[in-house]
Amino acid sequence: MTRLVLQNAAYVVTVDDADTVHPDTTVVVEDGTVTELRPAADGPVDGDEVVDATGRLVMPGLVNLHTHLPMTLLRGLAEDVDLQGFLTRVWAAEGAVMDEDTVELGATLGALESLLGGCTTQLDMYFHHEAAHRGAVAAGSRHVIGPVFMDGPGPDGLEWQQRLDLMRDWRRGLAAIGGPTVPLAAMPHATYTCSPEHLADVATLLQELVADPTGEASDAPRPLLTTHVSENAFENDDVRRRHGASPTEVLAGAGWLDGRVPFVAGHGVHLGPEDLELLVGAGAAVAHCPGSNLKLASGALPWEDVRRSGVRLGLGTDGCSSSNDLDMWQAMRQAALLARLTGGRPDVASAHDVLRAGTVDGARALGLGGEIGSVEPGKRADLVLLDLDRPHLTPVHDVAALLVFAAGRADVTDVLVDGEVVVRDGRSTRVDTADLLARARSRGAIAREAAREAARAEAARAEADRPAAPAAQEGPA
Amino acid sequence: MTRLVLQNAAYVVTVDDADTVHPDTTVVVEDGTVTELRPAADGPVDGDEVVDATGRLVMPGLVNLHTHLPMTLLRGLAEDVDLQGFLTRVWAAEGAVMDEDTVELGATLGALESLLGGCTTQLDMYFHHEAAHRGAVAAGSRHVIGPVFMDGPGPDGLEWQQRLDLMRDWRRGLAAIGGPTVPLAAMPHATYTCSPEHLADVATLLQELVADPTGEASDAPRPLLTTHVSENAFENDDVRRRHGASPTEVLAGAGWLDGRVPFVAGHGVHLGPEDLELLVGAGAAVAHCPGSNLKLASGALPWEDVRRSGVRLGLGTDGCSSSNDLDMWQAMRQAALLARLTGGRPDVASAHDVLRAGTVDGARALGLGGEIGSVEPGKRADLVLLDLDRPHLTPVHDVAALLVFAAGRADVTDVLVDGEVVVRDGRSTRVDTADLLARARSRGAIAREAAREAARAEAARAEADRPAAPAAQEGPA
Repeated sequence: MTRLVLQNAAYVVTVDDADTVHPDTTVVVEDGTVTELRPAADGPVDGDEVVDATGRLVMPGLVNLHTHLPMTLLRGLAEDVDLQGFLTRVWAAEGAVMDEDTVELGATLGALESLLGGCTTQLDMYFHHEAAHRGAVAAGSRHVIGPVFMDGPGPDGLEWQQRLDLMRDWRRGLAAIGGPTVPLAAMPHATYTCSPEHLADVATLLQELVADPTGEASDAPRPLLTTHVSENAFENDDVRRRHGASPTEVLAGAGWLDGRVPFVAGHGVHLGPEDLELLVGAGAAVAHCPGSNLKLASGALPWEDVRRSGVRLGLGTDGCSSSNDLDMWQAMRQAALLARLTGGRPDVASAHDVLRAGTVDGARALGLGGEIGSVEPGKRADLVLLDLDRPHLTPVHDVAALLVFAAGRADVTDVLVDGEVVVRDGRSTRVDTADLLARARSRGAIAREAAREAARAEAARAEADRPAAPAAQEGPA
Repeated sequence: MTRLVLQNAAYVVTVDDADTVHPDTTVVVEDGTVTELRPAADGPVDGDEVVDATGRLVMPGLVNLHTHLPMTLLRGLAEDVDLQGFLTRVWAAEGAVMDEDTVELGATLGALESLLGGCTTQLDMYFHHEAAHRGAVAAGSRHVIGPVFMDGPGPDGLEWQQRLDLMRDWRRGLAAIGGPTVPLAAMPHATYTCSPEHLADVATLLQELVADPTGEASDAPRPLLTTHVSENAFENDDVRRRHGASPTEVLAGAGWLDGRVPFVAGHGVHLGPEDLELLVGAGAAVAHCPGSNLKLASGALPWEDVRRSGVRLGLGTDGCSSSNDLDMWQAMRQAALLARLTGGRPDVASAHDVLRAGTVDGARALGLGGEIGSVEPGKRADLVLLDLDRPHLTPVHDVAALLVFAAGRADVTDVLVDGEVVVRDGRSTRVDTADLLARARSRGAIAREAAREAARAEAARAEADRPAAPAAQEGPA
């Protein structure tokens, strides 16, 4: 048995069901599982590794419920342009660089950024899911991903049946890579890129996988489905035009919402009351991504309405091509602020409420609520330590408010995932950061050039299509 | 002549009128003034102090156009309560601790947090302005403050005439403290706490001070006025009920908006078209505080409408009792995101646009546009260096977007104010931080106890006022 001790933390923010905050507490971790929270006054505890947590705060690792880690390489590549300009640039960049090796590189970069900022779990979505998983697990993340589905061939050039085959193989691939426990996941892109028939295929396959325990420990989390849902008003209109139904209704029609398969709806900005009713009936969760939704002018998720509906709310950053970073502290603060705007009152979305969304509710949405998401005996040690001895965190009057409205990722000093210290004193224990950043810059330069070339070609086409200017002699004299 | 050289910066983000970003550039500062931006390829420059800026970015210091630095001691003291609950707690805490020494302490703490995060100038507002100024200048800030005015006696117990006397004396007090060049400022609290007659008194006095150059260098910035304006809908309604006019119209009636005295309107969330017209005619500026406005559910300033009106927009954090920190990077990001929500388009409030608001437009609002706000030869060196060699800032595709949507205060390594290095490698060169934080915790504990006692008394009063519960036998059988 290996014992790791976080000795004498100033506060342990448990995010348990009572939002308990323990002052002056020592956290004992044995073989990767939290076994005891004991008053520091009871004296020190011996361990194979003892971290002096004096003046620091311990909390659960943050859970990013919707992101695209490999796109971290495309951070800021398409700014201040409309959707068409955005897609022109991003698709050109992806076509130019996103082979398996680069996907792995981008996922490692994204996982490293996430972990350094205290985000220990990501629900990721990108092509070449196996490469992405390898990259993120190498950095030390608890990383959830699976095959992406769309009707036509995507950047990986695969056909629909090949995607179903990938899904059938994914349990084996996941086990071979061997990171911390995560669910299998299938990731159809959206109801506007996958036909209802195809979506039904995936649901059927997932139901088979849920029912078939082959190769799984009996307490393994159930395989889950995720997709983009009602991200903006255009999507809702487009899907209704095609199918005479909302995206959520299309998913319900395809058998996604009968409660047999856990489901995470990415974004969910424009869910109607009927949609929320369908989701709550299925025990589904919404991954709220306030930074991306605001930046792309997709709209504002009405926090209070979703909470009242009973649908579980987690938080996500979306990918760096739209939200520019992977900072879950921003996601928490933005969610709290936006909820007060949409709710019209300052007592909507309390700091504790938002902390739950960023941790335990995200964990539950992934079927990992028994494993992670709070600091409680019996749970795996996905833990974050913050240094409170900083001017912007002084004095401490309200610990939860301090975390949501004043703290940030740079206050994170140490991070444990599954009991392993993957960040120590602000540095990765697993990634050769200088080498990684050099490789990211090199691949990024190729992506940038491709995006610029595509933007130039687009501008040239627009110029050629423009009606000729009237000749000078035709102007006013 | 003393020369300081920032050698070989990866980028200099000038925030000049053309939003120029220079790659690979050396910045030369002589006697506190930027004298040259030269290509690093031209070779190194000798200096009395040479900072190796390789891999770093140089930009102008951020300007916080509305804050209450001493209230940093009250960070998080009144969370998730309505306005009445907020005031009960904050007033009790202020009454218990806010003597002159504590105001000075709080201002130093707030200035330290600001400077560590790259904010070099603050337009502050608090009682005991002289103590606050001493505290902020000690930390190295370019700190703008002046007497606060309200009809009744405030926490400092002064009467109106005494406040006018303070204002007449303030030029001398400011000179005696001797920090970096700032304008004199007069700070009536709001149109709902100062009568129109009193507001007119202050305008008259300021006009005299503007006209009277006694004791001023001829190029000194003009004395300015600031107050809270249209922060929330309640304020607008309240002022209209009292005076039959909007807050801005009340100020215009009191002679504030004839263009003779520079004016900064704090918040300005709910300005109507007529208000904006009055403000633009006076050359006034609005200090937009998105974090505070959202957190207190005050509303959302319509960025695009204000921009179109021609009114200058700067950014502020407000005080820590409402916004919980003094992070101008948050203010920039929140402003950009909120502007896209209110504008309904992703190309509103570009990164460059928001950077201007956070720097040069704030400087111009203070009458300091010739002195600071951009990195240009002839301006004083209020400069910030950021380390770009970090995962969350890699790769660099768009420098301005990187600053607004991915960077943060913890990326700041060095800060110059008026040519002096006041932060080096993330640490203050002026403040004994450990001692300051210990004193802040000690005073903070007294404030917290006072706020809790007030909350208990309030709850007891509410309990006593509650109608008695019906006796058990009167309930349903």
